[in-house]
Amino acid sequence: MKFRIESDSIGSRDVPKDAYYGVQSLRAKENFKITGLMLNEEFIKGLAETKKAAALVNGSIGLLDEKIEKALVKACDEIIDGKLHDQFIVDPIQGGAGTSSNMNINEVISNRAIEILGGEKGDYKIVHPNDHANMGQSTNDIIPTAGKLAILRLMDKASNQLNKLNEALVQKSKEFDDVIKMGRTQMQDAVPIRLGQEFNAYSSLVKRNISRINNVKEHLKVINMGGTAIGTGINADKRYFSKIVPKLSEVTKIDLVQAEDLVDATQNLDIFVEVSSVIKTCAVGLSKMSNDLRLMSSGPRTGFGEINLPPKQNGSSIMPGKVNPVIPEVMNQVAFNIIGNDVTITMAAEAGQLELNAFEPVIFYNLFQSIETLTSGVDTFTENCIKGITANEERCKGLVENSVGIITAICPSVGYKVASNVAKTALKTGESVIDIILREGILKESELGKILHPRTMTEPGI
Amino acid sequence: MKFRIESDSIGSRDVPKDAYYGVQSLRAKENFKITGLMLNEEFIKGLAETKKAAALVNGSIGLLDEKIEKALVKACDEIIDGKLHDQFIVDPIQGGAGTSSNMNINEVISNRAIEILGGEKGDYKIVHPNDHANMGQSTNDIIPTAGKLAILRLMDKASNQLNKLNEALVQKSKEFDDVIKMGRTQMQDAVPIRLGQEFNAYSSLVKRNISRINNVKEHLKVINMGGTAIGTGINADKRYFSKIVPKLSEVTKIDLVQAEDLVDATQNLDIFVEVSSVIKTCAVGLSKMSNDLRLMSSGPRTGFGEINLPPKQNGSSIMPGKVNPVIPEVMNQVAFNIIGNDVTITMAAEAGQLELNAFEPVIFYNLFQSIETLTSGVDTFTENCIKGITANEERCKGLVENSVGIITAICPSVGYKVASNVAKTALKTGESVIDIILREGILKESELGKILHPRTMTEPGI
Amino acid sequence: MKFRIESDSIGSRDVPKDAYYGVQSLRAKENFKITGLMLNEEFIKGLAETKKAAALVNGSIGLLDEKIEKALVKACDEIIDGKLHDQFIVDPIQGGAGTSSNMNINEVISNRAIEILGGEKGDYKIVHPNDHANMGQSTNDIIPTAGKLAILRLMDKASNQLNKLNEALVQKSKEFDDVIKMGRTQMQDAVPIRLGQEFNAYSSLVKRNISRINNVKEHLKVINMGGTAIGTGINADKRYFSKIVPKLSEVTKIDLVQAEDLVDATQNLDIFVEVSSVIKTCAVGLSKMSNDLRLMSSGPRTGFGEINLPPKQNGSSIMPGKVNPVIPEVMNQVAFNIIGNDVTITMAAEAGQLELNAFEPVIFYNLFQSIETLTSGVDTFTENCIKGITANEERCKGLVENSVGIITAICPSVGYKVASNVAKTALKTGESVIDIILREGILKESELGKILHPRTMTEPGI
Amino acid sequence: MKFRIESDSIGSRDVPKDAYYGVQSLRAKENFKITGLMLNEEFIKGLAETKKAAALVNGSIGLLDEKIEKALVKACDEIIDGKLHDQFIVDPIQGGAGTSSNMNINEVISNRAIEILGGEKGDYKIVHPNDHANMGQSTNDIIPTAGKLAILRLMDKASNQLNKLNEALVQKSKEFDDVIKMGRTQMQDAVPIRLGQEFNAYSSLVKRNISRINNVKEHLKVINMGGTAIGTGINADKRYFSKIVPKLSEVTKIDLVQAEDLVDATQNLDIFVEVSSVIKTCAVGLSKMSNDLRLMSSGPRTGFGEINLPPKQNGSSIMPGKVNPVIPEVMNQVAFNIIGNDVTITMAAEAGQLELNAFEPVIFYNLFQSIETLTSGVDTFTENCIKGITANEERCKGLVENSVGIITAICPSVGYKVASNVAKTALKTGESVIDIILREGILKESELGKILHPRTMTEPGI
Repeated sequence: MKFRIESDSIGSRDVPKDAYYGVQSLRAKENFKITGLMLNEEFIKGLAETKKAAALVNGSIGLLDEKIEKALVKACDEIIDGKLHDQFIVDPIQGGAGTSSNMNINEVISNRAIEILGGEKGDYKIVHPNDHANMGQSTNDIIPTAGKLAILRLMDKASNQLNKLNEALVQKSKEFDDVIKMGRTQMQDAVPIRLGQEFNAYSSLVKRNISRINNVKEHLKVINMGGTAIGTGINADKRYFSKIVPKLSEVTKIDLVQAEDLVDATQNLDIFVEVSSVIKTCAVGLSKMSNDLRLMSSGPRTGFGEINLPPKQNGSSIMPGKVNPVIPEVMNQVAFNIIGNDVTITMAAEAGQLELNAFEPVIFYNLFQSIETLTSGVDTFTENCIKGITANEERCKGLVENSVGIITAICPSVGYKVASNVAKTALKTGESVIDIILREGILKESELGKILHPRTMTEPGI
Repeated sequence: MKFRIESDSIGSRDVPKDAYYGVQSLRAKENFKITGLMLNEEFIKGLAETKKAAALVNGSIGLLDEKIEKALVKACDEIIDGKLHDQFIVDPIQGGAGTSSNMNINEVISNRAIEILGGEKGDYKIVHPNDHANMGQSTNDIIPTAGKLAILRLMDKASNQLNKLNEALVQKSKEFDDVIKMGRTQMQDAVPIRLGQEFNAYSSLVKRNISRINNVKEHLKVINMGGTAIGTGINADKRYFSKIVPKLSEVTKIDLVQAEDLVDATQNLDIFVEVSSVIKTCAVGLSKMSNDLRLMSSGPRTGFGEINLPPKQNGSSIMPGKVNPVIPEVMNQVAFNIIGNDVTITMAAEAGQLELNAFEPVIFYNLFQSIETLTSGVDTFTENCIKGITANEERCKGLVENSVGIITAICPSVGYKVASNVAKTALKTGESVIDIILREGILKESELGKILHPRTMTEPGI
Repeated sequence: MKFRIESDSIGSRDVPKDAYYGVQSLRAKENFKITGLMLNEEFIKGLAETKKAAALVNGSIGLLDEKIEKALVKACDEIIDGKLHDQFIVDPIQGGAGTSSNMNINEVISNRAIEILGGEKGDYKIVHPNDHANMGQSTNDIIPTAGKLAILRLMDKASNQLNKLNEALVQKSKEFDDVIKMGRTQMQDAVPIRLGQEFNAYSSLVKRNISRINNVKEHLKVINMGGTAIGTGINADKRYFSKIVPKLSEVTKIDLVQAEDLVDATQNLDIFVEVSSVIKTCAVGLSKMSNDLRLMSSGPRTGFGEINLPPKQNGSSIMPGKVNPVIPEVMNQVAFNIIGNDVTITMAAEAGQLELNAFEPVIFYNLFQSIETLTSGVDTFTENCIKGITANEERCKGLVENSVGIITAICPSVGYKVASNVAKTALKTGESVIDIILREGILKESELGKILHPRTMTEPGI
Repeated sequence: MKFRIESDSIGSRDVPKDAYYGVQSLRAKENFKITGLMLNEEFIKGLAETKKAAALVNGSIGLLDEKIEKALVKACDEIIDGKLHDQFIVDPIQGGAGTSSNMNINEVISNRAIEILGGEKGDYKIVHPNDHANMGQSTNDIIPTAGKLAILRLMDKASNQLNKLNEALVQKSKEFDDVIKMGRTQMQDAVPIRLGQEFNAYSSLVKRNISRINNVKEHLKVINMGGTAIGTGINADKRYFSKIVPKLSEVTKIDLVQAEDLVDATQNLDIFVEVSSVIKTCAVGLSKMSNDLRLMSSGPRTGFGEINLPPKQNGSSIMPGKVNPVIPEVMNQVAFNIIGNDVTITMAAEAGQLELNAFEPVIFYNLFQSIETLTSGVDTFTENCIKGITANEERCKGLVENSVGIITAICPSVGYKVASNVAKTALKTGESVIDIILREGILKESELGKILHPRTMTEPGI
């Protein structure tokens, strides 16, 4: 490999001649071999957008030579279009509040701009990573801003998938609207419910979580660009200060707002705790729903057997014919992972000190993962599970009729005492409540039919 | 002690003759000797309010005899006024989704009503815990509703204390508005900031958290009264169903709303994960603030020494004169505790199954504690710490002047290269940046004075 | 109330004339109104033991006047015997690494000693809280040591209860040794198992956790007495330094060891993370076991219905005859609470700085609660649940015979292909595997009987 | 691309002609697009080792044709040597307790064996993934066993790195043995300590954690091979059952033990909670150490400034000359991540049901990450931070001499009252304690010199 020599305050180093990144990225790569993973793609794009907006503003107010401005903007556009992502070599978990990520993009767009301007990579006299690419900026406003842009896009994808899940659930709730089945509380037979109501409840839960996601997006649009190092805006030109956020809104097509208190906005990362909480709350609901599906589909012979999940793969390497609820199981695992990530994010947010929180990288690493795995988990959950669920209608109905729990519905017509005695007899003898009532002439078949009508038993208001 | 005999489906038992609680409370007490603590007072009041509203509605539609209605309402009013709380004998952590708490209040108000009506405690023919006190209700709508009422009141107290904290911080931010000090990022000298700006940032943080609390209160006002056992409203009278929530709004003076999907509202406890998240997010911010105060007040001789916290107690049993930052330390601990509680609440919420989540008791136990300790922590934090903070103005200024970090402010006037050299010389020789610049004639004293003016260095826009 | 005046470095204050505590306890009480709870009883005893040992050593080497020594020892003995506990007025969650708790006992034993010596409470010339009660000690060695003593005693109670649980499980595993039932993996029918094997597995799990508890106890016996303020032993007499730990072993009847590196032992609280982890690991197992019991007892009509938990209280305020698995449910909640506490303890342990971790109080508060609720949870779990479990033997056997899963046992005799076809037919037609095999003459009844013998199907080695 | 057709119980599918994986891996890949990551390399090797041992045993007892045995063994050896890892296409977070991973290796080694035997990939008549590769095994014994093997190897690497860290710390503790500095408790000046003692305490902490790692390794060596589906050993040949664990010990060169209770060992994953706890406890200590280093190196001018961390990269894109403690910061982040992972692992372990815990994949994903990031974090921490730390000896000494805290050391010589007065005067006037004592003639310079000797002040026993 051929190399060029680059220097920084630490000393000189060989950098691969073809690399768009430079010495600072290289040092960071070596200092932080933690996960071996790459930066999130949406985060890289967010970085490029902030750099593009800054170059445009700096150019428009005459701080940046037009030629340099145009070259930097072109370099940023390429990254926004998905190019050069392999030049981002720093680990997502890195010391230093994201300085390494910021310098990585500064170096990449500078070198690409140099190239565009006909120079040779590494010749920072033409375009300088700090003086030009980072002009008017600091890691401390760039990184949280790029992070928020990434999260906003990832959240869009998440709510998009949740909307699809909701549609599938609504569809199932209609399909199962007449399937009477036993409701259970604390794993014990309670009173009847319709399977459609259960799926409708899942839909209600999902809709509420979508609305939480939409609400928190508004808070994410408040950014601290212009605050530079510690929110006091040191070294930021007055014109740049007032133009950068509107320009970034234009570049990103997102209505961004400059934080009123930039000192606060630079040092506090509570917004990410808030976002993680929203994702976690959603995951908790999806995990509960998955548990329910696994319970209701338990069997085929020795479980509840009320519904069938679509078979997606062989369930066992040893037991012939076994099919397992693997899709809800992966949804559960995604939820457990998100819940753990939330703890990490919380701790990291708490650990900020004075003018900065240096632990943003681990927050982003976990938050990006939480949102992305939620999204992909919901995708497979919708497509490979919910949409293919079928009901064992007869089984459901049989369980209701055989249950003791329907006595609660009969109770108002026969009185608590009689009801209680029928229940006791049923439990002792194993007979069905219906048989006892008919045999003992407590109610006529027609009366019973009315009381035990699926709708009567499952809608409020007797 | 004298006893009366009571029976339930499990069998007969001696109950203390004077007790307002009955056999079911007693069994629960014995089954769940977990924490040894009492139910939260606000929760007991919330229970009494739901029971009162139910009695009023049941009376108004003729399901409940007027005499019984009045007696029950009187009993509830006494509890709302703080009486009979010692009759609540069940452990806050209990199996069974709160049935024990519900039966405890059913028994207490029934026995008190019996007494009011001239009967003898335990004579449930007069007023029956299930048939009368619990009429039209189920544990599964009563308990979450009473819990939400309690949380709403506790949240009011919390936001009240946070408002006081905010006022104290605003006051300090004004008081310290001219105190120039060194800003630090990643514990390393960065660029100057005014101490007032730091306290203003704390105020911004607190205000944002107050607004989160206010927002989540709206979600807490959605209740599932009328849903009875599993949200299908089984055995609930049509008139009761539509009147109970407006009546409870009247009783509580809180604008409550009946959930649109009662099946969902009965089985999903995500609202409590949401509330806990809000409290946790607030705690994270307060803990970070406490960490900052402990850093800035570190010393008195070998630390930062920028501010003084009011001495509140001797700091050491062995070191004379030592005073410690005990108030921020307790704020930290409150935060750590809240963060752990959030994990418990999350797990419990995830563990719901089918038509019910049986783990509400541990959720309430932790959530009540989180809100209450936040409230009391903020109280002592405001009164015994924030209000008495003083600044070591000279020390703060001296550190700035002696810092290398001010070179960033000088940079735009002298160029990056000169600035960098001055910084290096300063770090090597131990001289001050100011001395070097003046000695080497890089800038005149008057120019330097303008650049290093506290406002110039700490407000955006050069 | 009558008062006496006491002074400290903060100023003078009225203290109730009869109080054994003094001004420093009073200030702490006012500074930290957090939980409103009292210190743990075992912790108070542990404090008294360390103070007693210190007084004995200081007396024996002539640093403490014999009269004072004897009076202090008597005061400590009274506390060890359970007296004067109401004089401990400081909140368990307190700022300051436990200085408030340490000064509380220093004041109580000093005032009690003064009284014993015929003086008047508050006359610290006779016995001084710092000079005499705290001689050679510091909060920073007293508090962790007393905490460890408390934990050791609480752990004894925990392992005692776990042993009883284990016995009950072993008993059940014998009782159910012949009950063949369906094993399930991923909630789907797998292959047969005996109910006794399941309870035996629970017993194995419990035994492993008991052994973890016993192992960690050894680590708890390493204490930092003699380290004083920061582990350097400043102001500790050489003789005291070497005698204090053996003396404390004598007083407590526990083989304690002085840490080799007292600086480390004073600043690092990883031992408590270790203990909490052990408790948490145990709780995880018990919660899983509780989940299983709730699954297997689900029904009575529409669930698994394999076992019956003893009914302990009415399960519903609205549904006649309902009984719920309230004891396993409370075990689950205890586990969730312990898991959250573990996060709090972890965060607090991480937050130590330099020579001390100031967050011991919240660690102890949570750890004591974890161990105590585990203990009481296991107690009710054993007595009110495990011991009374019965098996529905016929139901269990019926499910096995009706299952498709037994085909796995038949597979080696008939080949995978035939087995697979039988399974498919059974699932499609609803017939039993046995019926198909006999009808199609694949195996004879006698052959089938041998293969399907409960032992053959559930022990390794064909 | 060319394809071959493969079928399973779900139906037929095109599989790339050259692929060693088959239809079941492909389905799993499509069902679980969660993280987009690959299986851990050590886990893949562990899988290959279990398969190799099984083939060897099955061959030796005549269940497997020798040719097939040899081919399978060769295929396994290639994977153990690092080949074919790209054929493992399933996501680490997958539904189904690892069946997908197990089938992935079954398919890969079968197809490779077929190839070795001269057949064409996909021709499973020659070597069958279930009948031959998986003979005598089940996902439910293979996956936990392979996971334990992977963890054992990863733990070796972790303890290896921790040993290097320990050596570096011991080295520093010697180097700094004479550097007297101020000890601080609760961020307030306490009493002197030597910098070497602090590094020695770090070493003690690390050694204790290494010993925890070594202890838990023993528990990891207990495996459930032979238990097959649910621990009852169904379909396992008696000879296979007794030979498989010794053979696997031979293959892996690790002394493995067959669990006494295989039912327990198959359904309970508490061992992984235990391992995660050990890793977490270690991380807590390393994070605390990192916090200390960041505090002690704070400055350069306005912080503690007691030590210098080696500069590893530019600290700021805007502030010239700034260098940040990026290596300890990444160590902190690794710790936060591990602590969150522990919560995920805990929840997943709790969620096991009946005969199996289906959530092993997310446990392994997190646990592998925890151990690996700990290892790489410690590596950079040792090499890029600890080894290069230097002390600012003069600054350290100056702070001690200027401190009020040394009064504690002087206290025994002059009495508490005099000491207290000197401390007060010093704090009020800003004078040094030494100056006051000499000026007021309280002690002579020679006496003071003896008392303030670094060793005298920092070793126990006056």
